[in-house]
Amino acid sequence: MAELDDDAMERFPVPEFDALPADLQDRIDEETERAGFTPNVFAGFAYKPSHFRAFFDYYDAIVDDAALTREEIEMIIVAVSGVNHCYYCNVAHGALVRIYAEDPLLADQLVANYRTADISDRHRTMLDIAVALTERPASVTREDLDRLDEVGFSEEAIWDVGAVTALFNLSNRMAMFADMRPNAEFHTLGRDQE
Amino acid sequence: MAELDDDAMERFPVPEFDALPADLQDRIDEETERAGFTPNVFAGFAYKPSHFRAFFDYYDAIVDDAALTREEIEMIIVAVSGVNHCYYCNVAHGALVRIYAEDPLLADQLVANYRTADISDRHRTMLDIAVALTERPASVTREDLDRLDEVGFSEEAIWDVGAVTALFNLSNRMAMFADMRPNAEFHTLGRDQE
Amino acid sequence: MAELDDDAMERFPVPEFDALPADLQDRIDEETERAGFTPNVFAGFAYKPSHFRAFFDYYDAIVDDAALTREEIEMIIVAVSGVNHCYYCNVAHGALVRIYAEDPLLADQLVANYRTADISDRHRTMLDIAVALTERPASVTREDLDRLDEVGFSEEAIWDVGAVTALFNLSNRMAMFADMRPNAEFHTLGRDQE
Amino acid sequence: MAELDDDAMERFPVPEFDALPADLQDRIDEETERAGFTPNVFAGFAYKPSHFRAFFDYYDAIVDDAALTREEIEMIIVAVSGVNHCYYCNVAHGALVRIYAEDPLLADQLVANYRTADISDRHRTMLDIAVALTERPASVTREDLDRLDEVGFSEEAIWDVGAVTALFNLSNRMAMFADMRPNAEFHTLGRDQE
Amino acid sequence: MAELDDDAMERFPVPEFDALPADLQDRIDEETERAGFTPNVFAGFAYKPSHFRAFFDYYDAIVDDAALTREEIEMIIVAVSGVNHCYYCNVAHGALVRIYAEDPLLADQLVANYRTADISDRHRTMLDIAVALTERPASVTREDLDRLDEVGFSEEAIWDVGAVTALFNLSNRMAMFADMRPNAEFHTLGRDQE
Amino acid sequence: MAELDDDAMERFPVPEFDALPADLQDRIDEETERAGFTPNVFAGFAYKPSHFRAFFDYYDAIVDDAALTREEIEMIIVAVSGVNHCYYCNVAHGALVRIYAEDPLLADQLVANYRTADISDRHRTMLDIAVALTERPASVTREDLDRLDEVGFSEEAIWDVGAVTALFNLSNRMAMFADMRPNAEFHTLGRDQE
Repeated sequence: MAELDDDAMERFPVPEFDALPADLQDRIDEETERAGFTPNVFAGFAYKPSHFRAFFDYYDAIVDDAALTREEIEMIIVAVSGVNHCYYCNVAHGALVRIYAEDPLLADQLVANYRTADISDRHRTMLDIAVALTERPASVTREDLDRLDEVGFSEEAIWDVGAVTALFNLSNRMAMFADMRPNAEFHTLGRDQE
Repeated sequence: MAELDDDAMERFPVPEFDALPADLQDRIDEETERAGFTPNVFAGFAYKPSHFRAFFDYYDAIVDDAALTREEIEMIIVAVSGVNHCYYCNVAHGALVRIYAEDPLLADQLVANYRTADISDRHRTMLDIAVALTERPASVTREDLDRLDEVGFSEEAIWDVGAVTALFNLSNRMAMFADMRPNAEFHTLGRDQE
Repeated sequence: MAELDDDAMERFPVPEFDALPADLQDRIDEETERAGFTPNVFAGFAYKPSHFRAFFDYYDAIVDDAALTREEIEMIIVAVSGVNHCYYCNVAHGALVRIYAEDPLLADQLVANYRTADISDRHRTMLDIAVALTERPASVTREDLDRLDEVGFSEEAIWDVGAVTALFNLSNRMAMFADMRPNAEFHTLGRDQE
Repeated sequence: MAELDDDAMERFPVPEFDALPADLQDRIDEETERAGFTPNVFAGFAYKPSHFRAFFDYYDAIVDDAALTREEIEMIIVAVSGVNHCYYCNVAHGALVRIYAEDPLLADQLVANYRTADISDRHRTMLDIAVALTERPASVTREDLDRLDEVGFSEEAIWDVGAVTALFNLSNRMAMFADMRPNAEFHTLGRDQE
Repeated sequence: MAELDDDAMERFPVPEFDALPADLQDRIDEETERAGFTPNVFAGFAYKPSHFRAFFDYYDAIVDDAALTREEIEMIIVAVSGVNHCYYCNVAHGALVRIYAEDPLLADQLVANYRTADISDRHRTMLDIAVALTERPASVTREDLDRLDEVGFSEEAIWDVGAVTALFNLSNRMAMFADMRPNAEFHTLGRDQE
Repeated sequence: MAELDDDAMERFPVPEFDALPADLQDRIDEETERAGFTPNVFAGFAYKPSHFRAFFDYYDAIVDDAALTREEIEMIIVAVSGVNHCYYCNVAHGALVRIYAEDPLLADQLVANYRTADISDRHRTMLDIAVALTERPASVTREDLDRLDEVGFSEEAIWDVGAVTALFNLSNRMAMFADMRPNAEFHTLGRDQE
């Protein structure tokens, strides 16, 4: 059975697993089984079960009903988290980028500066828009969306670029506000690929 | 029966109401009855039903399970939307601020500069933190949360200050990315109070 | 006879109307007759009569000897005040935009983000330059003035785009420094157009 | 008789002195006699006589009816122009700072970074507020005005700190928009003091 | 014998090892022996031998004649590189932080946001000043140096905080301008500590 | 024999000349003979002899082994120092710009805003890149280097544009951290050219 790390976040108490509603316990057990450990973001959002459900349902919608590949989604997440300076998301989603892109170096590139990443022009454009929407949303115009169209993103995929970026502008702020701490495992996951 | 305004957003097509899944139709009917018109954010998110559900479920969680008053929630939303320069949220949630705070002027103050608003010191501190988390999340520290504690916010209410701020950093970006347009009604709602 | 609102500004005392020099009384009476109330900016600048005269003479020169239409002048003012976050000018000149442009929604668009406003490409270019001169004056180059020429502004009109922008970078700062408060009437003026 | 330098500004034509209205000719003659040359700002604003009158009347009001010393006024002007990166005002008002403060080095300090200037704590506070009102006017609060009070500025002098700052946020933008060029004389005036 | 990676930087050619001056060959051999591979920064600076010598001599001076511990030096480097978004230095000096601090997680914390790092208050103050000097050098005042004194840094150590920060504002810009690429080894070095 | 000015910097003590290592004495004597006075940067760096050697060796490498002219090097230095707001470098290298460019006005232009300087398009491009690398290094891309190539800079000269910029991002920060003060002589040197 899963156990929640008391040190999963610094600024709010982590509840006892046993005291959680059954649906949260189930979700956490499922994630724990999949990952081999309980990612601390589950311990963090468990502080408030209604928010736990809302956050992970949103994340599931973004990931499960997507016109982007999972690799593209995780690339956007890490580029956004890099410019927002989010420790939790840099590290946890950095691991996912390494795994989904099958590239041990890409996450460190995206955290530092997506413009230095070894990626296609198409993905470079995708990250240009995601970072612009993160840093200066008032300046994003129809021309930016047209650029995505020109490099081959479908209309729905363009919506999804905005949606992933928007969700991680939420997620980064929750993780930073609560000072969530990535599990030690995430720092090394996916680094030993050939 | 509700009808969705084709001009509800500029950068993605608005679907036909009849073509929406039943649960979306129900939610939209309910909102339309309550407001007397269909707020365009429902037309906008209807573009992608899975995201519609995720977004409004999150919003419901924030509003329905809150250690903040509804007035406080809407104040945070408008102050955040003002610094993010979000036209839709300034206007639509500006109307809600006028209604929940029973103050016809407060929304225009918060949109311009929350530091000029006629509010208590307690609420000024609340908005200091919400705006800091919006504009420069990497610099928010435990001391900022302690300031909220000192002016009387409970631990859960502090979490909620972060959560409302985070959700509207998502919401502002979706509305700005899709260029959602507030219904004309929102511009004047709640302005004629004594 | 006009009366000055004691609460017209927060950080300096508002003088008695009777104690003002005759030319200020005349100007204030004239404005009061025209508007039906005394705009608080007159009460604010009355604090120092020499500055009152200088400010309103400058404003008169800008408005009365202009190669721009009054609608264009007020559009620039509200776009500039929006990025400077000036509560007084957003609201008072927002009312003037609604009236001169005969558009009940335009002011809220310009306050939020001029890029979302329903305006011509020509006016979009005009506001691009006005906002650039406001936010990052060192980066405005001859190419920016050429853009205005290309969309049909005369040489004098180009000068005036700069002049209106410059004056409201003064005006915003005086209103914000003194914390001038817009009259309640301005919040609703011009909102009930068809 | 004065002559206007064709190269006084780069982006608008400089009119012929003879073609100017008599009051502008008189004012320019007077300034030319006083300075020994015609400062190019007079040639620049002569492009539009109504703006010429408005600008120099405002400047006269600021300088002639002031609760600040002339030295203080020029210090504010150069500190503001330094952060706005205004070539004309840095150089022309830099000369005036050297003369009024009887200090050959002060202008170069203020242009670079007012925090490095050899000035009293009282003047340091004055420039803190002037630069804050220039760079981030929305964040200036009553506490900033109180700081000026605490170091001995009268209420009217506090108003004047705001007014000088505001006028040069106009002036800098006019000079930068038109690309006004300081007369060669200004670069060296007041540098040879002991 | 060392070999230089052709892909050590993206924007300038990497010279042949054999064609380098003897002193550069010696230095590179020495580093290669120590590290087990040739760090790409040596391949990068080898483009211009006079700059190679100048850079590594400066680095040696900073490291070898320091009133700071090597751990402190590397902490400053990674915090500075994080805010400058330097891919090479984040990764290469991130490895050195892990090794010298004997902490497998600290580098990822410093890259993301030094305010989230698990460090002493003394080191937090050190990084506050280093990051301020990086991001907004004009605002660093004597009070900032006094803060370092108060938490126990000697006068020479305070100088060194400035010197390390300054050198990596050079180093980051060279690595970013040339687009230097960290060796794959650096990404994992020091991650497997207990 | 040279004497070091006790007031050469504000925040660290200036050592006695006699107490310095012989190589520092020699270098200082040489500079003093050349300039007719001892530039205060030598007094400043003398605080720590190992850093003195490293800094001036780097500067010598930049100046002596350059694919740029000395005039170009000093133009970059002053443009960079202007945007960094470095009092010492603005004034000391401002004098060098006046001398090497044989132009009494250029330094004041570059300090204020390099975009207003009377320079060729080629040099304008050079300073565009130098200032971009200073203010927002993460956004400098290969396209920026290509722009330098297009206006005629050789590959090595492009490297040098980066190298001079990088060194003065170090130098500005050392001068600002220690609050080094330019010698009075620098303020007027080279101003009396025809």
